[in-house]
Amino acid sequence: MTDAAHPLDAAEAALIDRYWRAANYLSVGQIYLLDNPLLRVPLEAAHIKPRLLGHWGTTPGLNFIYAHLNRVIRARDLDMLYICGPGHGGPGMVANTYLEGSYSEIYPEIAENEAGMKRLFRQFSFPGGIPSHAAPETPGSIHEGGELGYALVHAYGAAFDNPDLVVACVVGDGEAETGPLAASWHGNKFLDPRHDGAVLPILHLNGYKIAGPTIFGRMDDAALRQFFEALGHDPLFVCGDDPLVMHQAMAAAMDQALTAIAAIQAAARAGQAAPAAAPPRWPMIVLRSPKGWTGPKQVDGKRVEGFWRAHQVPIAAARENADHRALLESWMRGYRIEELFDGEGRLLPELRALAPVGGKRMGASLYANGGRRAPLDRPDWRAFEVAVPHPGGAVAEATRAAGAYLAELLRRSEAARNFRVMGPDETASNRLSAVFDVSDRAWMERIEPYDEGLARGGRVMEVLSEHLCQGWLEGYTLTGRHGLFNCYEAFVHIVDSMFNQHAKWLKVSRALDWRRPVPSLTYLLSSHVWRQDHNGFSHQDPGFIDHVVNKKADIVRVYLPPDANCLLRTLDHCLGTHDRINVIVAGKQPAPQWLTAEQAEIHCAAGLGIWHWAGSEQPGEAPDLVLACCGDVPTLETIAAADLLRQHLPDLRVRVVNVVDLMTLQPREEHPHGLTDADFEAIFTRTRPILFAYHGYPWLIHRLTYRRASHANLHVRGFKEEGTTTTPFDMVVRNDLDRYHLAMDAIARVPGLADTAGPARQAFRDALIAHHDYVTTHGEDMPEIRDWSWPYQTAADAGD
Amino acid sequence: MTDAAHPLDAAEAALIDRYWRAANYLSVGQIYLLDNPLLRVPLEAAHIKPRLLGHWGTTPGLNFIYAHLNRVIRARDLDMLYICGPGHGGPGMVANTYLEGSYSEIYPEIAENEAGMKRLFRQFSFPGGIPSHAAPETPGSIHEGGELGYALVHAYGAAFDNPDLVVACVVGDGEAETGPLAASWHGNKFLDPRHDGAVLPILHLNGYKIAGPTIFGRMDDAALRQFFEALGHDPLFVCGDDPLVMHQAMAAAMDQALTAIAAIQAAARAGQAAPAAAPPRWPMIVLRSPKGWTGPKQVDGKRVEGFWRAHQVPIAAARENADHRALLESWMRGYRIEELFDGEGRLLPELRALAPVGGKRMGASLYANGGRRAPLDRPDWRAFEVAVPHPGGAVAEATRAAGAYLAELLRRSEAARNFRVMGPDETASNRLSAVFDVSDRAWMERIEPYDEGLARGGRVMEVLSEHLCQGWLEGYTLTGRHGLFNCYEAFVHIVDSMFNQHAKWLKVSRALDWRRPVPSLTYLLSSHVWRQDHNGFSHQDPGFIDHVVNKKADIVRVYLPPDANCLLRTLDHCLGTHDRINVIVAGKQPAPQWLTAEQAEIHCAAGLGIWHWAGSEQPGEAPDLVLACCGDVPTLETIAAADLLRQHLPDLRVRVVNVVDLMTLQPREEHPHGLTDADFEAIFTRTRPILFAYHGYPWLIHRLTYRRASHANLHVRGFKEEGTTTTPFDMVVRNDLDRYHLAMDAIARVPGLADTAGPARQAFRDALIAHHDYVTTHGEDMPEIRDWSWPYQTAADAGD
Repeated sequence: MTDAAHPLDAAEAALIDRYWRAANYLSVGQIYLLDNPLLRVPLEAAHIKPRLLGHWGTTPGLNFIYAHLNRVIRARDLDMLYICGPGHGGPGMVANTYLEGSYSEIYPEIAENEAGMKRLFRQFSFPGGIPSHAAPETPGSIHEGGELGYALVHAYGAAFDNPDLVVACVVGDGEAETGPLAASWHGNKFLDPRHDGAVLPILHLNGYKIAGPTIFGRMDDAALRQFFEALGHDPLFVCGDDPLVMHQAMAAAMDQALTAIAAIQAAARAGQAAPAAAPPRWPMIVLRSPKGWTGPKQVDGKRVEGFWRAHQVPIAAARENADHRALLESWMRGYRIEELFDGEGRLLPELRALAPVGGKRMGASLYANGGRRAPLDRPDWRAFEVAVPHPGGAVAEATRAAGAYLAELLRRSEAARNFRVMGPDETASNRLSAVFDVSDRAWMERIEPYDEGLARGGRVMEVLSEHLCQGWLEGYTLTGRHGLFNCYEAFVHIVDSMFNQHAKWLKVSRALDWRRPVPSLTYLLSSHVWRQDHNGFSHQDPGFIDHVVNKKADIVRVYLPPDANCLLRTLDHCLGTHDRINVIVAGKQPAPQWLTAEQAEIHCAAGLGIWHWAGSEQPGEAPDLVLACCGDVPTLETIAAADLLRQHLPDLRVRVVNVVDLMTLQPREEHPHGLTDADFEAIFTRTRPILFAYHGYPWLIHRLTYRRASHANLHVRGFKEEGTTTTPFDMVVRNDLDRYHLAMDAIARVPGLADTAGPARQAFRDALIAHHDYVTTHGEDMPEIRDWSWPYQTAADAGD
Repeated sequence: MTDAAHPLDAAEAALIDRYWRAANYLSVGQIYLLDNPLLRVPLEAAHIKPRLLGHWGTTPGLNFIYAHLNRVIRARDLDMLYICGPGHGGPGMVANTYLEGSYSEIYPEIAENEAGMKRLFRQFSFPGGIPSHAAPETPGSIHEGGELGYALVHAYGAAFDNPDLVVACVVGDGEAETGPLAASWHGNKFLDPRHDGAVLPILHLNGYKIAGPTIFGRMDDAALRQFFEALGHDPLFVCGDDPLVMHQAMAAAMDQALTAIAAIQAAARAGQAAPAAAPPRWPMIVLRSPKGWTGPKQVDGKRVEGFWRAHQVPIAAARENADHRALLESWMRGYRIEELFDGEGRLLPELRALAPVGGKRMGASLYANGGRRAPLDRPDWRAFEVAVPHPGGAVAEATRAAGAYLAELLRRSEAARNFRVMGPDETASNRLSAVFDVSDRAWMERIEPYDEGLARGGRVMEVLSEHLCQGWLEGYTLTGRHGLFNCYEAFVHIVDSMFNQHAKWLKVSRALDWRRPVPSLTYLLSSHVWRQDHNGFSHQDPGFIDHVVNKKADIVRVYLPPDANCLLRTLDHCLGTHDRINVIVAGKQPAPQWLTAEQAEIHCAAGLGIWHWAGSEQPGEAPDLVLACCGDVPTLETIAAADLLRQHLPDLRVRVVNVVDLMTLQPREEHPHGLTDADFEAIFTRTRPILFAYHGYPWLIHRLTYRRASHANLHVRGFKEEGTTTTPFDMVVRNDLDRYHLAMDAIARVPGLADTAGPARQAFRDALIAHHDYVTTHGEDMPEIRDWSWPYQTAADAGD
């Protein structure tokens, strides 16, 4: 007899329990065994791994969930992803994908037989084998769970614009204490049942972390219900430790949850949801089960099951200590191997029949394994060209031009719904507002009549959490879709660690043939260090670039386009790439423009170039000095410095070099974009002084170039952590990056010049003093600084 | 007639309203005015700042709260801190500290008269003036609020072990969306009413962020009540926009909250709280008031008050546009200046009487301004010396030794309660468990009979959130107390951005005489990149050091002690410093020990040194090669490499240099710990090849040394992002940092050696292959690698 609270008949309950036991058996085997995988003979020391690594505590719960998800996938023909927050429960994810067959399809050497099982056990946390976490090597995973906090945000990211997908997401009670996870519960306010798939959060409370209790584990059910209902979720509780009771309860909760999800989606897709109502109450499950469930109750007289001692390897000395080994053997035999596998070590057919088939298996889902990368319909970026009659002959806001391009991208992807823009409430501030002409902000909460730019189904995502923006975009791109994260430069450090983990994921993924490429994750960092003059020191930090370049060269790209057309070209390029992380830093303030689209194409394709028009070198002659620049503000100051030098020292031969692609500076052996030494010297010369005006911390340029022969001639100016609330030009002055300091640096560096350039130097000093006096009196930069435009304009005009 | 719901009589309500209006007036004045501060004449363009900067939207709410906190401070003689989460409401914090007189005491040029008011207005967000946020320059602040998310965690940190303090903490509804803030609500589970002060969270809902609504602002009161009650708080609601109604409501809520706090503390301190019960339900306030309250309702026909357009400067063109200017003037006059200030611009005495006096003023609190730094009673670290009969003659876990020292620190600080250890559930994992002999983990939730190491009043703080650990320790040290944050090395990146903000805070604070020094924030990073072999790639990241050294040299210190005695000495040194951020990286695994305490003292005081006993140079002769090392694992591999070279190439003269203090490598001009060039060359030589084995990313060593003349001879090995789950030695092999690679590197680098060293090189290659075969067969490192100890042992013994 079955009913809604007991949906399993006795036979099905027994089968699911056996399936679960099989997964548990394989999990323990991975942690412990080198050999004797089916326990054909009594366990001996030589069968046990010398280093016992792995996390048992969370694993039986993960296996329990997997078995029940399999059931509903089959019953309802679902496409489902399993995001395993406690990724260190890797043995469970590996065990389950092995049981369902997807593992052996990808890794044929890990066959579904005794030899394969032996390899399966041996490879786990073994040199040359697989990591202990739900890593890229784990089929069906898009989430490693090594660093905790990002499970649920990845789940929502995967669900956006995947209407046929259900993302089951297990959140451990340890992870639930982290900040990013705590914020992630708000994902339901952004999930649109019409266009998006569903997320089924499963909070798995086993009560303990590594060495102590968890906050959520100690909350009672009433408080948990209150908490999640307040956040708009509808929690279903599955609590206990008796397997057969728990199977019924879990099956009932799953049925109820999936039915509710289907009802929400059906109502929304039939147009029945009131457009201005509160978001739907999506179901979630709270699973409270013992840590190390079904493992040893006690070891050496100490509490293990249901306690933190079950966290990692509950029986520590199984190789050396015969009592421990006997305990391990009785634990493993307790799963009754003969009810699970046949004589060859193959899962019994009635159990195998419990798993979904083909691409419905969670380990074989194309959503996870990279099979669904949809091409992005990019417009021709040249259509958004800012007209630049001659260098310095126009003023524009670079990011505003980018906004127009992004708006067109949003327009073209309206049907495919495979492009989103994420940002922490800064999209308008970063002057990308053109996107709102095409798409509103995603917003499922109440909308007031006077609100602007909010809608269900919006594809601009704004929430005041860099963690959510980053995590959503990771989940979105890892499931094959495209996007951009726009952020204030200083605060992108908030996601330093998420960047790390994503870069590591991509590095490993790229080496796995069976994982298809996924779209790159692209950052547009604006409101950057030089134009946070109004917000001050806390908002001034260009160090994310330094952080990024620590990662593998084949993964990271860093671009600092000097003007709008270069930004357009760079942005378009980045959005066409895959398996990378692109960082673009660009200003939002009105600034002189230098290159036409045609010139920008050539310049950006090369990654750097000599700007002859800005310098004063003579064809065929080596310059006296190279002024290099990277970043929009340093470029402006460098061009102005070259102009000052031309005025005051007309005989000095100056070369101006602009760098867009920072990676070109590295040696070719270090980065695929790196210049050869010959090319480097052709541009920067081998012997002439190089003054490099750089957007960020100056030592990064040294780090990238220290192997170049001309490095000894290199002098770099950049941000040296001198910031405050002041004027834009005063910011560069405080960091010695302004035109006058650069011109004085030039005088100091060119041999012999110091003797004759006294009057010029004095003029530059006087200008600085005059500016200082003006600025502290008037509170703004001097008019000629504010409105500086390339005086070459006149010359060029005259020449035409 | 007053009652609990209307505690103000009409006169007092009117006075508080006038005080609030005065603060609002001064706030608007700071944003807009250069001159005419008392509006003695009609506003002219010249009176208006040319650049209008500042955040009006949040400010009237902040001022409202300040006025009401003043009232309860006076009524109850409280010591109170105001943590202003929306720190960009800086005009409000400046206005209030000016009104109460603390501002002019610190900055006498900003006097309490018309001329002072003019300066007050002018300096705000003005070049040479003050930042727009609640920055270090703001009296009474320990929190800048530029980067959002850390208000509440700072508040709890300040309250721990400050039993007489109430920390009022305003959280904006934007900030409430961030992850760190979301996790911070759990602070109540760690606050012990017996030993700690109180936190009064004030969630300030004004409904909008920069350009859109907030999640919390759209939650109704019932959901908010449910949310906060679930988290164990007791919310009191103050909602509306009519000032006089709101004054009564706020006064009533404040009275109720402070009475409840007093009752909780009295019960706990009288020993009446059940020790195993749930934590007390501390009160909090939810203030729902319009964004830009009392500002213009509309500008240019567009909604401003109560909408996101009030966020920054509501009237944008007040200088250029006469209509805007008239609107501004009528807005400012609406506060009725004549009811606020006397003819000289001084606050009217009946209003001044509303502010507390002396150190009770929130702007003058010694808790905030650094006046309460309590000396830490440090033991003699030598008492914890690990006996090292000769280099390599002992094996120990460095952090375990540190744990014993920390336990004694906890013991000695038991009465003063001025030292805490923070960590994300990793204190035991990092092998600091000795601390639990002295103090349990702070835990206010239910404690089960079988739980271990949990107690109310514990001074070891564990929560699975690096954000909370960091933020608590910031709040704790900024209010004068001491502590240590122990963390896995890879995951400390989670707080990169918090580190940035704290470093910036310290940099600015150090330049302000009136801010007294505060204890340094010290990190002990363990479970580091080389010994996360079991957790794999996601746990392997040494880049925090790179991040840290971007900050100002006078703030940051980075130490990599090579063994236990060096760690003890370094830790003790760091805990005795102030106004710095110290980063210590040290291993937890059993490892050979090199130095006695006496030797460690000399070595660490110098920051680096030649280890003659490890090398093979002859007195008076230049070595053929320098093997330098920094970090415990690179040190072991370097010593082993030197040993291999001695065995195989006995004529080669090798110098071994160990670096503890990474900052010594920088030029003296760049860092106070930097060596002079002469000293650098005395140690590293000018001309000999230097092979540097470094703990982290190798390019950092290049970056620190590129100005040294011997830099051209420098070859660095370090972590090159090659990680996985494997054995410890295989990890160094994968990154070419092992003894064999180092020895082969040496052969390649010493001129002339390559020709004669063929057999040695072959031996090293063979050893690597043999090791690889062994490791992939047995799953552990070869015995001679696992148990490697300095063979010099025998020689030294023989020599004695």
